[in-house]
This record gives sequence, C-alpha cells and structure tokens, in this order.
Amino acid sequence: MIIIGIDPGTATTGYGIIKVKGQKSKVKSRLKCLGYGVIQTDPSLPPELRLRKLHNALSKLLREYKPKILATEKLYFFKNLKTAVPVAQAQGAILLAAAKKKIEVHQFTPLEVKMGICGYGRADKVQVQRMVKEILNLKEIPKPDDAADALAIAICCLNFLKGKK
Amino acid sequence: MIIIGIDPGTATTGYGIIKVKGQKSKVKSRLKCLGYGVIQTDPSLPPELRLRKLHNALSKLLREYKPKILATEKLYFFKNLKTAVPVAQAQGAILLAAAKKKIEVHQFTPLEVKMGICGYGRADKVQVQRMVKEILNLKEIPKPDDAADALAIAICCLNFLKGKK
Repeated sequence: MIIIGIDPGTATTGYGIIKVKGQKSKVKSRLKCLGYGVIQTDPSLPPELRLRKLHNALSKLLREYKPKILATEKLYFFKNLKTAVPVAQAQGAILLAAAKKKIEVHQFTPLEVKMGICGYGRADKVQVQRMVKEILNLKEIPKPDDAADALAIAICCLNFLKGKK
Repeated sequence: MIIIGIDPGTATTGYGIIKVKGQKSKVKSRLKCLGYGVIQTDPSLPPELRLRKLHNALSKLLREYKPKILATEKLYFFKNLKTAVPVAQAQGAILLAAAKKKIEVHQFTPLEVKMGICGYGRADKVQVQRMVKEILNLKEIPKPDDAADALAIAICCLNFLKGKK
C-alpha cells in the first residue's frame, strides 16, 4: 500500500510518499520511502494560476506513484486569518486532485501527527524530523521541512490505519 | 462578453451569468441575464467528494456558457473560523475550474459588491437584490439568495471593468 502525505502551503507544499510491504513483518523493516519533495508556486502569479500549478503537479505525482491514500493536515486553527484563506484554498486543490483519482483521504491535526510519530503531542519539529528519518531508515533528515512534515503525516496515517484494524 | 458571478459556499454555491451586448448602448438595455442558480453538495459526503461535485458542476457551466470572466467573492474576514476553511476550500476548487479553462478571475469584497451595485457599502441584502432585479430587467428577485448574490458579483465586476477603461 502506498500513502502520499501532503503538507499544504501557499508558496510551498511538501509531499512525501511511503510504501508498506506486506502485512505481517515489523513496521520498520517493511516501510519504505519512495520519494519526497516540494511543489512551489510563484508568489507573483494570481491565486488561480498558483492553484492550477499545485493541482497539476500533484496530479502528476498521483499518476506516477498511484497511492491508495492521501493524508494531509486538518486545518482548524490559524494564528493569522490572512494566511488561512490561501492555505485552505491550496488544500481545496489538493483534496480535489485526490477525489478526481478516487484516492481515499485522511486528515490529521498537527497534534495528531506529533502523537502518531513521537507518541506525545508536545514533540518539537526536530524531534518529529528525527523520528521520520529513523522510521523510514533514511541516511539524513529529509529537507526542506515541508517535505519532512509531509512524510510525518504519511507515517501518522499509516499508524492510524493500523490502529483501526 | 459573458461574466459568471460565483458566491462560494460549502453546502450551496450560487452562480449567475450575465451577458453584455455591444459597447455603445446604455448599460441597462444591453445587459442580459443568461441564467442563475445554485450548486449544492451533500453535507453527509466527505469534503473531497463535495469539492469534486462543486468543481465538476461549475466546469460544466463554464463549458456551456463560455464566460470570458469569472467574478467571485474575496474572502478576507470570517466571524467563525470553522466556516472559513470549508468556504476557502470551495473557492480553491472554483478558482481552479476557472484557471483550467483560462478564464480571467476577479475577486471583490462584499463591501465592493454593495458599492458597485447600490453605490454605497451599507446597502442591505434586500436593496442589493432589488437592484439586481432592476439592472437585469428581471420579472422578480432571483431566488435563492445565493444566486442573487452571485448575479450581484457579476454586475459589480462589469462596473469595475467599465471603470477601468
């Protein structure tokens, strides 16, 4: 099963793709990172063209990796309303890309992601990133932060799905 | 020139389509309402499926009426953050539909719409609706409110574009 994690943003959207092999072996040994990175859009473009760029780039990733599940951040709180609208619009384009390909969507709050990765909700960014590196057996912490966050969301989703069984 | 106005919402998105004939005659006589209505999505569905429904229904309208311009509400203030995220996500799907068809997008705040229709920003809902009926030479006030609001946004956009010339 392949899961793509998405950390939505206006200028930069992080993505991370993980694959789980088999069902019976231990989690760590059967988890693989297929890829990660960011989709960037030009701040000088009007919002609709930035959304199209994001949507097209993500749709391409979905075609390429064929994930069964897309996991993304649940937007529910913003310190700054000005940033809320463009991030939520970006997420609209992301959810739409998943729905068009009939990919199952799960959303998690930042607290749930930290709990799912580190076991406690007050974990800081660096702790989460180290756990991502550890769990996926990577040589180094994925860069940039948005990509590491996206991988964390994907791992959190996997743990959530395992918990449901 | 055809303009589609969109009043974005989670459960109900209003749309209104106007056509301007020629350039030289008086505004009222050369303005025509081609259609209006609402796109509704089922609140029991997950967000991504509601966004897909909205996006597909709007894309169909864009294919049918071939507007040159899509005018929509500029989201910049919310009394309730809980409603902000789904409305902004819906608008993401709307802006994307326009961008995919290379349709020019303009956004207006509620204040700008009231100013553009009634000439003053404190006009109430009923005053705006009466002006929409008057300007478009309609037999009655368009129903539901979301459709009337969408027509108001389209008219506001037309006035804005005339002002720019």
